[in-house]
Amino acid sequence: MGKKNISYLCNMKRNITIVKVGGKIVETPESLNRLLQDFSALEGEKVLVHGGGRTATDVAAQLGIETHMVDGRRITDDSMLRVVTMVYGGLVNKNLVAQLQAHGVNALGLTGADIDVIRSHRRPLRNGVDYGFVGDVDRVDGKRLASLIASGITPVMAPLTHDGEGSLLNTNADTIASETAKALAREGIEVTLVYCFEHAGVLTDPDDEESVIPLITRPTFDQLKADGTISGGMLPKIENSLAAVEAGVRRVIITRADSIGEDRGTRIE
Amino acid sequence: MGKKNISYLCNMKRNITIVKVGGKIVETPESLNRLLQDFSALEGEKVLVHGGGRTATDVAAQLGIETHMVDGRRITDDSMLRVVTMVYGGLVNKNLVAQLQAHGVNALGLTGADIDVIRSHRRPLRNGVDYGFVGDVDRVDGKRLASLIASGITPVMAPLTHDGEGSLLNTNADTIASETAKALAREGIEVTLVYCFEHAGVLTDPDDEESVIPLITRPTFDQLKADGTISGGMLPKIENSLAAVEAGVRRVIITRADSIGEDRGTRIE
Repeated sequence: MGKKNISYLCNMKRNITIVKVGGKIVETPESLNRLLQDFSALEGEKVLVHGGGRTATDVAAQLGIETHMVDGRRITDDSMLRVVTMVYGGLVNKNLVAQLQAHGVNALGLTGADIDVIRSHRRPLRNGVDYGFVGDVDRVDGKRLASLIASGITPVMAPLTHDGEGSLLNTNADTIASETAKALAREGIEVTLVYCFEHAGVLTDPDDEESVIPLITRPTFDQLKADGTISGGMLPKIENSLAAVEAGVRRVIITRADSIGEDRGTRIE
Repeated sequence: MGKKNISYLCNMKRNITIVKVGGKIVETPESLNRLLQDFSALEGEKVLVHGGGRTATDVAAQLGIETHMVDGRRITDDSMLRVVTMVYGGLVNKNLVAQLQAHGVNALGLTGADIDVIRSHRRPLRNGVDYGFVGDVDRVDGKRLASLIASGITPVMAPLTHDGEGSLLNTNADTIASETAKALAREGIEVTLVYCFEHAGVLTDPDDEESVIPLITRPTFDQLKADGTISGGMLPKIENSLAAVEAGVRRVIITRADSIGEDRGTRIE
């Protein structure tokens, strides 16, 4: 009996939960407090990935710098890179770290440049658009991250990477989360990736928060897409989630921020 | 013979060099480049501690926030805390990290909140002055730092600490450097603390860069103080350095930034 238990334990894979929260959640005191409590209460090894776009836009405006977005992505010239470095790497990240510490979580703020954890390259022109200092991820050092996490540290990742040649690059937080999830999965870890957003999950009726689709797999996705149940901005989000699952991530959960750690939302497997 | 060598190696203490550079050096492209080269070339385990006050003052001014200093210390109200969090924790720190990575140094940016490495308390009123969110250091986690450094990581420390209750605190970079030096010394490490400033060392004649005092000890300091050779702002700097030495730091070196790693400047032992 005892031996059986031990062998069972030895066969158990290590689990890590990656929670990605957008700017809206960390930028509103009430939702931030709820998030800090829920994330702190999450059992086991975990990682927090955050955005901060609204604050970046506000600070840029205060500095007289105009924000230009193309397809939801921020055009990042030299002065905007300074702003996002201040806001994502400093203001949002360090406040999250200090507040998680107060909640008993041994947080460590990271950009991709720190311990060279995420290397990227500057995005080439796309449809004639120069995004500026925007990075597309080349690799995440899953081994280093896994070992930090094993030592009791909870990484708090800002949406900034670096090119290895001295330049920081503005990088989409969803991408940071999914690339980190894949890299940890490659280390043989069972990874759950949780995307928090403003709805209870992927809905069949956008006006009905009760209409959550509990499970999406590749075949059901193809069908939901074909019959028009899922459309618009949800399509790439689910496509990316399925790609993460196909790359070894155990499951992706799309849910409301206040439902982290609960068995709710849409599960993508 | 072989055994002797091994025993010699085992008796060797681990060495760490802590380099503290002020804002002026990291804020000027030429001196920053020289610093990056010199610091990268430093052999062995090392730590970089940086300031950034001039950029903080500039960014604050751009945001319409006035800077108030008392005895060379920044009064840090809520809006100034936001600024120093952005500038020290984000802009200066993350750019140093990205550029050190490009120079082959596996840098990790840290505030005191990250992995709870420096805990402080908010400074009480001093002579009726409320410094605001300014922290006086309570403890540095030398064990955690020593083990990070042993794993090949070079910490890059911003002048921010935290109170353990969710608040970041603005903290003097010289103090971060000396408290970190003492904490590593307590771990049985031989620590050299290098303060970089604008002169070649402690000078007997402030107008003659050749008049560097090569060595200061407690007895020679008392004499130099008594005969008026050293006065003004140098007194507390040397007093703090001697206190660090008396607390177990092997030596403190006061030198010009472009002389790091050279046997120059003033040695305090």
